[in-house]
Amino acid sequence: MSTMLANQGQVIVGSDHRTTSPGLRATILGGLLGGGIDAIDAGMLPTPVLAFGVPKLGANAGIMVTASHNPPEDNGIKCYTHEGREYVPDEERILEELIGQRQFTDVTWNQTGTPTEARGLIDAYTERLMGRMESFRRKLKVVVDCANGTTFNLTPLILSKMGCEVISLNAHPDGLFPGRPAEPNPANLVTTCRFVSMLKADLGIAHDGDGDRLAVIDEKGRYVNNDTVLAFFARLLLTENGPGRIVTTVDTSSRIDKVVESSGGTVERTRLGKTHLFLTQEDRSNIRLCCEPWKIIDPAWGFWGDAMYAACMVVQALDQSKGHASALFHGIPDRPQERLYFKCPDELKDPTMATISKALMAEKSLRDVSTLDGVRVNFNDDSWILVRKSGTEGKIRVYCEGRSPNRLRQLVRNSTRLVEKAITTAQRSGTKPA
Amino acid sequence: MSTMLANQGQVIVGSDHRTTSPGLRATILGGLLGGGIDAIDAGMLPTPVLAFGVPKLGANAGIMVTASHNPPEDNGIKCYTHEGREYVPDEERILEELIGQRQFTDVTWNQTGTPTEARGLIDAYTERLMGRMESFRRKLKVVVDCANGTTFNLTPLILSKMGCEVISLNAHPDGLFPGRPAEPNPANLVTTCRFVSMLKADLGIAHDGDGDRLAVIDEKGRYVNNDTVLAFFARLLLTENGPGRIVTTVDTSSRIDKVVESSGGTVERTRLGKTHLFLTQEDRSNIRLCCEPWKIIDPAWGFWGDAMYAACMVVQALDQSKGHASALFHGIPDRPQERLYFKCPDELKDPTMATISKALMAEKSLRDVSTLDGVRVNFNDDSWILVRKSGTEGKIRVYCEGRSPNRLRQLVRNSTRLVEKAITTAQRSGTKPA
Amino acid sequence: MSTMLANQGQVIVGSDHRTTSPGLRATILGGLLGGGIDAIDAGMLPTPVLAFGVPKLGANAGIMVTASHNPPEDNGIKCYTHEGREYVPDEERILEELIGQRQFTDVTWNQTGTPTEARGLIDAYTERLMGRMESFRRKLKVVVDCANGTTFNLTPLILSKMGCEVISLNAHPDGLFPGRPAEPNPANLVTTCRFVSMLKADLGIAHDGDGDRLAVIDEKGRYVNNDTVLAFFARLLLTENGPGRIVTTVDTSSRIDKVVESSGGTVERTRLGKTHLFLTQEDRSNIRLCCEPWKIIDPAWGFWGDAMYAACMVVQALDQSKGHASALFHGIPDRPQERLYFKCPDELKDPTMATISKALMAEKSLRDVSTLDGVRVNFNDDSWILVRKSGTEGKIRVYCEGRSPNRLRQLVRNSTRLVEKAITTAQRSGTKPA
Amino acid sequence: MSTMLANQGQVIVGSDHRTTSPGLRATILGGLLGGGIDAIDAGMLPTPVLAFGVPKLGANAGIMVTASHNPPEDNGIKCYTHEGREYVPDEERILEELIGQRQFTDVTWNQTGTPTEARGLIDAYTERLMGRMESFRRKLKVVVDCANGTTFNLTPLILSKMGCEVISLNAHPDGLFPGRPAEPNPANLVTTCRFVSMLKADLGIAHDGDGDRLAVIDEKGRYVNNDTVLAFFARLLLTENGPGRIVTTVDTSSRIDKVVESSGGTVERTRLGKTHLFLTQEDRSNIRLCCEPWKIIDPAWGFWGDAMYAACMVVQALDQSKGHASALFHGIPDRPQERLYFKCPDELKDPTMATISKALMAEKSLRDVSTLDGVRVNFNDDSWILVRKSGTEGKIRVYCEGRSPNRLRQLVRNSTRLVEKAITTAQRSGTKPA
Repeated sequence: MSTMLANQGQVIVGSDHRTTSPGLRATILGGLLGGGIDAIDAGMLPTPVLAFGVPKLGANAGIMVTASHNPPEDNGIKCYTHEGREYVPDEERILEELIGQRQFTDVTWNQTGTPTEARGLIDAYTERLMGRMESFRRKLKVVVDCANGTTFNLTPLILSKMGCEVISLNAHPDGLFPGRPAEPNPANLVTTCRFVSMLKADLGIAHDGDGDRLAVIDEKGRYVNNDTVLAFFARLLLTENGPGRIVTTVDTSSRIDKVVESSGGTVERTRLGKTHLFLTQEDRSNIRLCCEPWKIIDPAWGFWGDAMYAACMVVQALDQSKGHASALFHGIPDRPQERLYFKCPDELKDPTMATISKALMAEKSLRDVSTLDGVRVNFNDDSWILVRKSGTEGKIRVYCEGRSPNRLRQLVRNSTRLVEKAITTAQRSGTKPA
Repeated sequence: MSTMLANQGQVIVGSDHRTTSPGLRATILGGLLGGGIDAIDAGMLPTPVLAFGVPKLGANAGIMVTASHNPPEDNGIKCYTHEGREYVPDEERILEELIGQRQFTDVTWNQTGTPTEARGLIDAYTERLMGRMESFRRKLKVVVDCANGTTFNLTPLILSKMGCEVISLNAHPDGLFPGRPAEPNPANLVTTCRFVSMLKADLGIAHDGDGDRLAVIDEKGRYVNNDTVLAFFARLLLTENGPGRIVTTVDTSSRIDKVVESSGGTVERTRLGKTHLFLTQEDRSNIRLCCEPWKIIDPAWGFWGDAMYAACMVVQALDQSKGHASALFHGIPDRPQERLYFKCPDELKDPTMATISKALMAEKSLRDVSTLDGVRVNFNDDSWILVRKSGTEGKIRVYCEGRSPNRLRQLVRNSTRLVEKAITTAQRSGTKPA
Repeated sequence: MSTMLANQGQVIVGSDHRTTSPGLRATILGGLLGGGIDAIDAGMLPTPVLAFGVPKLGANAGIMVTASHNPPEDNGIKCYTHEGREYVPDEERILEELIGQRQFTDVTWNQTGTPTEARGLIDAYTERLMGRMESFRRKLKVVVDCANGTTFNLTPLILSKMGCEVISLNAHPDGLFPGRPAEPNPANLVTTCRFVSMLKADLGIAHDGDGDRLAVIDEKGRYVNNDTVLAFFARLLLTENGPGRIVTTVDTSSRIDKVVESSGGTVERTRLGKTHLFLTQEDRSNIRLCCEPWKIIDPAWGFWGDAMYAACMVVQALDQSKGHASALFHGIPDRPQERLYFKCPDELKDPTMATISKALMAEKSLRDVSTLDGVRVNFNDDSWILVRKSGTEGKIRVYCEGRSPNRLRQLVRNSTRLVEKAITTAQRSGTKPA
Repeated sequence: MSTMLANQGQVIVGSDHRTTSPGLRATILGGLLGGGIDAIDAGMLPTPVLAFGVPKLGANAGIMVTASHNPPEDNGIKCYTHEGREYVPDEERILEELIGQRQFTDVTWNQTGTPTEARGLIDAYTERLMGRMESFRRKLKVVVDCANGTTFNLTPLILSKMGCEVISLNAHPDGLFPGRPAEPNPANLVTTCRFVSMLKADLGIAHDGDGDRLAVIDEKGRYVNNDTVLAFFARLLLTENGPGRIVTTVDTSSRIDKVVESSGGTVERTRLGKTHLFLTQEDRSNIRLCCEPWKIIDPAWGFWGDAMYAACMVVQALDQSKGHASALFHGIPDRPQERLYFKCPDELKDPTMATISKALMAEKSLRDVSTLDGVRVNFNDDSWILVRKSGTEGKIRVYCEGRSPNRLRQLVRNSTRLVEKAITTAQRSGTKPA
């Protein structure tokens, strides 16, 4: 990083609360100082607060030690530009190549960096977020599940200050994640949902460990489909800020397209996990939202995914609505989805995908086809299938959404047959002498 | 305080997380420094950790800014000696008189104190408490309710490190106490009890805001009677450390006497909230426990009330028992209790109490009578009545415990009649010309 | 202060290193928090860095605990606006009246302020000041005398980083000021001057305790007249930034007028210690410098008196000059000065001054007269006399500057006779029956 | 280090103020945490305070990042045991082998260490040192030269608090060491000596950069021979604590032997830089002092070399003496010394030394001979010669001390001839076929 920044400037380093995080943070700080960078230790905080801190403190970059929603034994690093935007693949590649080739520029003994500490980022973030919201008029009862992560002194505290009756769950930061796995998917939130229902709360909010993911639970204790939450934000921001572009990934629901269309916006899709690529465009003034499953980037708020901001926006919308949480999502079509995977050795993935692509594109009643990341075919009735190679495992992944449960069953049946057959075909060709 | 300490030495100052606490802490630090004391800022922490810190750091005294289990708008101060023992009334009186008479000794400009900060007390306390426990053998599921207080990074974290599956409730510190009122009484823990039951947890633990009070919930989600918890600790410590003295207050159950008797100890009673007075005795080596409703002082652990330590001891006992939480309390008689109050103007309290005392002492089948704090009569069947003046309100308070529900009803009926009649009599005499 | 700010906003609080400073700082922090202000503890630092910090952190005000150049047993408070400008008398009066009448607005328990700490102001200031300077070309040997004050990690460190060979004197902060009295006047700097000469250093720099005063010593170890230093800055800033206004006090030398005139500027005078009043004017864009004995405010750098900045500017000028330090002051007339005082009871000051004024205004060869603060008469030959009442002591003060030593002797003789006679006259009138 | 400590326990890490120190400290902290050690960051402080902190905080070891008195571009590491004793070669070898073979034991993700910070070590050290001294009776004027190092807020501040009139030189910590080279040898202290004389101070004290070296300057501004200072401490501690052992190195003066003998002690010598080896002996109760050029270990004070303690002891002795600083050293013979070196390729060192040894041992009038580190011959008149191989350079080093200047000249002449001849002989043999 110090080499990439030409051995000068300031870099903020923060970490989540994982057991391995403080050690990694100290090592990174040491490397930066030795590389001539003024390293700012931001301590333990959520990822969005670190990203917020980079432009706030006028630093040149930010480094966050976190494994986000992954299991407790994992850890990793996210880098942020001076604007608080996560590094895009091109930027990461430069960094990785420097590390891979151990091409580090050294500085002489009298050009080392100066260490400082950044206190008060959490307070500054809290102040800005509370300034972003209007006074609440209702006394909402909200369950906030912090996944034993670093949002414990942000989301529940801010909602409480806004006047909510907050009951917090798993709100003590604990690197062992004893309460539940950090990923806020429906399976991990069964207890949280039941608790919302038991308490007759108005809403449930659940985060991952580092505060960049959000799940919503309605007043009945029902997990709100994640694509529905994304569609809600698309509609909210288009209504607030006027027509514009909504960026999302190829694995999200056509309900987003429906809602965006009727709200005067346009949807643009990108590879999984890469919506922030659009924030490198020269003209980004018209981008209203970048969204991925569980993640929200509102460029008018900041260039980082921010689930604490998103949580507060949902509660504010509920406060202003006078109705139930479930009513917030009215008008967003609720279509059944299913995700499947099929084991497939790495070397067979390409021929398998080729067969599948050909077959899918030959389907009837297609409205359009995307090959940004695997192949996604959209049918005229808004149903769709996405088939893609897993980047990290020996699997082919299939995502289906149907206009109705029956239609979904049909899509799942057809695609299962298609993929299994393609793998078999690939295996046979693979055994032939080359 | 600086005057009391002859304008020299070290004092540690800590506070809970109430909204008014940081301001009070800063003001106290300023006063100590100006009075020639080296003031150590211990920041936000539970009361037991502040008390632990005084002997740990070799300081001369400790000051804790906290209103314990009181409502969020309250605040107050507790003082601790160099041993970590709370000030007794005589010590508090000296302080209050100095303040009341504004008799502060000043120091000259070059004898002011030096400020420092105490980091790491929470880590040091955690290390000592974990060293006190044996390895856990079971994977216990424990709900810990922190009352939005300062125990959030202690009790749940320590139990998690010991291997428990901890689900924490209200574990983000919040001076507004949005989750529930801080006092861990049955009424405030209804939701917590239901949550324990819903989760099929092995045990529930609930604190007040500053960590000196403990409530226990069994595996069925039932609130364990507080006197039963005290009796449990008496039995545990007598068994562990051998025969000795158990100090408790006049408002606690005769079940404690029963259990202590059969465990080879002797019970000594004192006024409400004053069991730590016994720790000023020259020979205190034989005191096994000082206990008051929700509060536990184990002198072998430390001279302060410590509900985090108590919580870990209960979980350890459960771990070693191989049975259910409810089984921990087997052998402790469960007798029904009721608390009443009667309005009585301050000037009538004394004549009313005189009439009541006389009548109670004339009751039949009495085993003995205590007049330490009001009047308590113990019947031969272990039932008892305590009547006392409220120290802060215009009330006469009555505590009854019966051997059986029927017996309790009888005690309540009789004492109600007795107190009401005594108040009426006092009012009539009061209207006579003196 | 919290009342003055309507119980909201942020205030930074810093202090110098005096023995009584940490206690006062803590007490002020406590008061601000209780008054609803978010109080930022900036710790120990020089006054200019505190002032710099207010706009830097976007705070609403700053409070500095310091007694500047006064003896170690003194202490006091300076307040700064959101721009970093010291409070003017009108602002101080509001504050003093609120304090005097104990008219404090309270906030409710849930509106108290949030405490934070400001780390890194010293680093940020250092970075900005180094960015303000051009690379040094010479290896200058500079003695820096920090008066055992808070500039120890700024002026000598910055000059060293710029490439100077710095020898520091009294550079350990010590509230007892063992090295020399804090005021950087010639009497207190005898040793420092001799040390500069002994070392054959290129320059000597001396501060007071909190970094808002500067004295300069030339390469011969000679103390440079303070008005000559002010004239140097006036010429420097007029040359750099173009013609404009120079604000100074009525007790400074006519050499300033001479130099300013020939550099295209205009001099405006004000009462002692009040040049920052001009920074409240609507149009201040044309003010090049506010200067008082030992104090420099360059509005283009910041609205506060800043002797560390001034020190660096002198060294930079020397670096760019290629000559000796004494040559920096060429072209600035060096006229002899003398300060006298006469004992005069408070009740006689007014009649005495009336007599003196009349007599002085009747002098011949006067160019002009000023009655801003006492009475100052300027003669046609640039000699002048200022007579004023002491604000704090029972004295009449007289300042004389003559075109030549002979002329000075004459002025001193005349004004002595004049003042003594006026006092005698006043005493006689005073003894008459009214 | 974490491997050596079996991946558990606490290690304190501190550093001096060199530009490369914070980066190295952070990297070490990161490594310890990852290795399962609870790492305590002690920040910037002198080496003796770090060593003092290890037993004070009950840690298992200490690591100090410092290059002591070396040039600014150097840096290094010193390790300390739980007693605060520097590692001896055997302990260092274990560490170096582990590092050399990269044999690091890893810990699993949930056994990483916990980071904390140690504040207040400087205050605690100051308090202990001031408690060690008696009240001063004289108002001594003392110049303290801190070598721009980390003693700036210790030695001068403590002496000032004890009542001295302290004038500090080079007391701002600056990693560029602009004031003078850090080693407190006579050549580097010429200015300091002149300053003491100019000020007519009672005493001068000079440190190296990290506070483990002391030089003393008397009231005339004369540098006191370092061996004389050691002899002074030997006499002082033998007088205070009774007869015992004085440990020193083979390169120190016979004046130490003279003084120790007459004070009832015995001298034991060891290799250069290794007197602390004696502190690993089972019975060390009788060791009164370990001393090396500029370094003092008083085991009754602590097991580390401590020049701040030593400085205070010298000033205290002066305070109690009522005389001049030079009088403190009366009775210690002042014998002239000279140090020479001769270039000698590494491969010729051994044969050269063999020749020299033989010749030296054949000298007449020898009292005794030591071969602990090179060869040292002591003559009957207390004159001596030490010849040893340099461990780091291609040199043979010769140390001579004579009873008189004439005797010294003779020793230098003889040993020069001897060594030059031995090298020549070795070169000739070296060119012969083996």
